[in-house]
Amino acid sequence: MVQSTLLYAQSGGVTAVINATASAVISEARRRKVKVLAARNGILGALREELIDTSRESISAIRALAHTPGGAFGSCRVKLKSLEADRDRYARLLEVFKAHNVRWFLYNGGNDSADTAWKVSQLAQAFDYPLTCVGVPKTIDNDLAVTDTCPGFGSAAKYTAVSVRECALDVAAMAQTSTKVFVYEAMGRHAGWLAAAAGLAGAAADEAPHIILFPERAYDQAAFLAQVDKVVKQVGYCVVVASEGIRNADGTFVADAGGAADAFGHAQLGGVAASLAGTVKASLGYKVHWALPDYLQRSARHIASKTDWAQAQAVGKAAVQYALKGMNAVMPVIVRSADAPYRWKIAPAPLSKVANHEKTMPASFIRKDGFGITANARKYLAPLIKGEAPLPYGADGLPRYVTLKNVAVKKKLPAWED
Amino acid sequence: MVQSTLLYAQSGGVTAVINATASAVISEARRRKVKVLAARNGILGALREELIDTSRESISAIRALAHTPGGAFGSCRVKLKSLEADRDRYARLLEVFKAHNVRWFLYNGGNDSADTAWKVSQLAQAFDYPLTCVGVPKTIDNDLAVTDTCPGFGSAAKYTAVSVRECALDVAAMAQTSTKVFVYEAMGRHAGWLAAAAGLAGAAADEAPHIILFPERAYDQAAFLAQVDKVVKQVGYCVVVASEGIRNADGTFVADAGGAADAFGHAQLGGVAASLAGTVKASLGYKVHWALPDYLQRSARHIASKTDWAQAQAVGKAAVQYALKGMNAVMPVIVRSADAPYRWKIAPAPLSKVANHEKTMPASFIRKDGFGITANARKYLAPLIKGEAPLPYGADGLPRYVTLKNVAVKKKLPAWED
Repeated sequence: MVQSTLLYAQSGGVTAVINATASAVISEARRRKVKVLAARNGILGALREELIDTSRESISAIRALAHTPGGAFGSCRVKLKSLEADRDRYARLLEVFKAHNVRWFLYNGGNDSADTAWKVSQLAQAFDYPLTCVGVPKTIDNDLAVTDTCPGFGSAAKYTAVSVRECALDVAAMAQTSTKVFVYEAMGRHAGWLAAAAGLAGAAADEAPHIILFPERAYDQAAFLAQVDKVVKQVGYCVVVASEGIRNADGTFVADAGGAADAFGHAQLGGVAASLAGTVKASLGYKVHWALPDYLQRSARHIASKTDWAQAQAVGKAAVQYALKGMNAVMPVIVRSADAPYRWKIAPAPLSKVANHEKTMPASFIRKDGFGITANARKYLAPLIKGEAPLPYGADGLPRYVTLKNVAVKKKLPAWED
Repeated sequence: MVQSTLLYAQSGGVTAVINATASAVISEARRRKVKVLAARNGILGALREELIDTSRESISAIRALAHTPGGAFGSCRVKLKSLEADRDRYARLLEVFKAHNVRWFLYNGGNDSADTAWKVSQLAQAFDYPLTCVGVPKTIDNDLAVTDTCPGFGSAAKYTAVSVRECALDVAAMAQTSTKVFVYEAMGRHAGWLAAAAGLAGAAADEAPHIILFPERAYDQAAFLAQVDKVVKQVGYCVVVASEGIRNADGTFVADAGGAADAFGHAQLGGVAASLAGTVKASLGYKVHWALPDYLQRSARHIASKTDWAQAQAVGKAAVQYALKGMNAVMPVIVRSADAPYRWKIAPAPLSKVANHEKTMPASFIRKDGFGITANARKYLAPLIKGEAPLPYGADGLPRYVTLKNVAVKKKLPAWED
């Protein structure tokens, strides 16, 4: 008889610590003598029967996986529709699960993935197949409901706070004869969590970042320019952090300003930092610079948060435990029991309460003038970037990241075309 | 009688380790009981008599300075003209030097600063004032002549290689259903040193970065697009690293492509990564992302190279020693005596040989197809990013960077207007 199997898959945008979760899942399952397969590219691999045999990876490789950024098995941006609308796909999923005797399915992702996990958990019941489906949280956007924070966010937050502090030192040194306004673009289409984390870079009135722009507040160009000018006159320079998703009062993205534009697609690509920097230069005449870290902020394992890293591993371990206990349709979430010192534990939450509920920042986290974070926000954010996660470096000066063998399991079913 | 004084100043773009040089200068001078003043904002502070008394800083502050990025005393982008053309400024400089009994002047900067230092060194002789002027190397551009490398470059190079490796893991994980082409923009207007350093992120044929674009080679759009397409088809995704200064065959900057543009100044601000990403999307249809780390790459002390950090301190220490020996118009440079293991020492070089000679990459460092680095380049670059420079973190999860008191010395001269 085929051994009962746990299938693990990564979904959505990857992070600096999602592989730490994967490592914990595999380690905990091994400890319990449970076979783990990993789907290549998330749910796609499950549909295509592209499964990876993690037993082929050495203990040291799984250990190194815990400090390797990216998504070791591949991820995907695919959302399943309802049981009715996506009947063929669900039927195929069941076929693959049966063929490999998958009794436990762990789906590691953000909002959309929690929704997919929830649907799969219902599927099992509907088709009377003994499957336990557990969602595992992950997203640098920090917008999952119920959980105190999302694995991946703390490390991106730490990257952001450290980078902004470092850049600010650079700008401060040069402001007398060079750049006076610097704009840093943080990820966050709908929620300003990462931009808010930049606020941890400074606390005193004159410390950078001097202005933070959140998608939760409509962008007011006149007020923004007035604030920039005030800060430059007072401090000598101004560091601005902007969420990529800030919008004008009429709902249009600030990133699109000025730009139906050209055949090269600039307007489409030009981010909010470029737009704001252009506005500052055109209106105030200051020399400007801007940075768009893009994927750097979510893959920078070299500056990961130890708190985040520990939580990423804890949710992986708990997910295996919940699955083996038959706790279907749940997600291990992080529960905060104290702010300072930060105390947290893992507890199960119903997937139905997590899926499709986007958590934006509480209004009490944004300063009245809309340009910074409050003491409440600091209290929430501060513990999440604490501690440095160990990372071995090679003699070449580069982090020792692992590349898994990712040996494919022999297919048992006919090929599948979506 | 007023004590003989050493004046130290920082000039040009700051780096992750220029303060390590400053720390070494102050420590070495203290050991020799020599008083150190620092000019605020480089040569400007010397002209304005804005001098900082470094004796007011504690031992621990000077120690912390060694791991603090930015320029602690402020820097500037100001170039002195010839003795004839800038007579007033030179006369003023001498006045300030005399007023504070400055007998040694250390100017810490890149090409332009070496030129300024050289002029000041000549000034002393011309006016018969006993001044010893020593240039101290610094620049992330790595374009100073004579020296094997420039303090600041190795750390920016390490940041670049690590960031590109991390981003590549992210892109690889997502490529199946998301971004297929990622473009990273590296600093370097005239020389492709930092872009070349990205090449250290991977060595095997399919490893990122798959394409590097150097300002030393004319940009050929058709060849570039063909290469991107080939890599995507072969590897599944393509990571491109581009120097900000790459130009078309007609000499125009690629960064300007498509863009006389709009009132918001996008064209002026949009970098080369945005332009290339737009071209790839428009021509090949692949989903693209791009990053512009800007000042992050030169201020990221948290991922500094230990080799670079050691060299930054060594040139600072040597500069004081040369100055006290009366070695006028020299610069301590780094001399490489072996590649592997890397061996280097500090030796004096005439400022006249360093000033105004820009070192571009040897042709033998760029692959024949123009899209990557050669084994020669690897041999040169590899040692420069080796080792991790120690950095203390606070309980808040942020690096412990120091802010100096920067106590001003009482002015003795009338105010000066440039």
